[in-house]
Amino acid sequence: MFIILVYDVGEKRVAKVLKICRKYLTWVQNSVFEGEITESAYKKLKLELKRAIVEDEDSVIFYILRTIKYSDREMLGRKKGGEEIFL
Amino acid sequence: MFIILVYDVGEKRVAKVLKICRKYLTWVQNSVFEGEITESAYKKLKLELKRAIVEDEDSVIFYILRTIKYSDREMLGRKKGGEEIFL
Repeated sequence: MFIILVYDVGEKRVAKVLKICRKYLTWVQNSVFEGEITESAYKKLKLELKRAIVEDEDSVIFYILRTIKYSDREMLGRKKGGEEIFL
Repeated sequence: MFIILVYDVGEKRVAKVLKICRKYLTWVQNSVFEGEITESAYKKLKLELKRAIVEDEDSVIFYILRTIKYSDREMLGRKKGGEEIFL
């Protein structure tokens, strides 16, 4: 499956969250990661993030696409990171 | 179609970009919007954003899902905005 992850966490926890996300996904923009991931790796990722964030203050969204067959990505402006995965 | 929009723009342009995004989509997190949108509204949205941002400095990503049948959304932490669209 393919996931898009967007985080919004307190400054103190950004480095930790980035490090965790980078282990599993590709960075695409400031607070956005994406990538193919297995179900078990996704569970690990969520667990690690759950431990790293402060649930009352921080927020992480995962969009889970079981296929990217019906999806595209478009960008405006500067390309800030990551490789092209979508065509 | 359904789109997920993530922006990363200079502070001076945040208010303008938010205002544009709110016309077309639902706010879900700090810099994330999502929603059903027609092809023509999506074109307008892109055009308005293109005019509002500084292309060398800012960045807006659109994920376009032609169907949300194969998608889910999960969240960790605080719910920061928006209504639930995904089940």
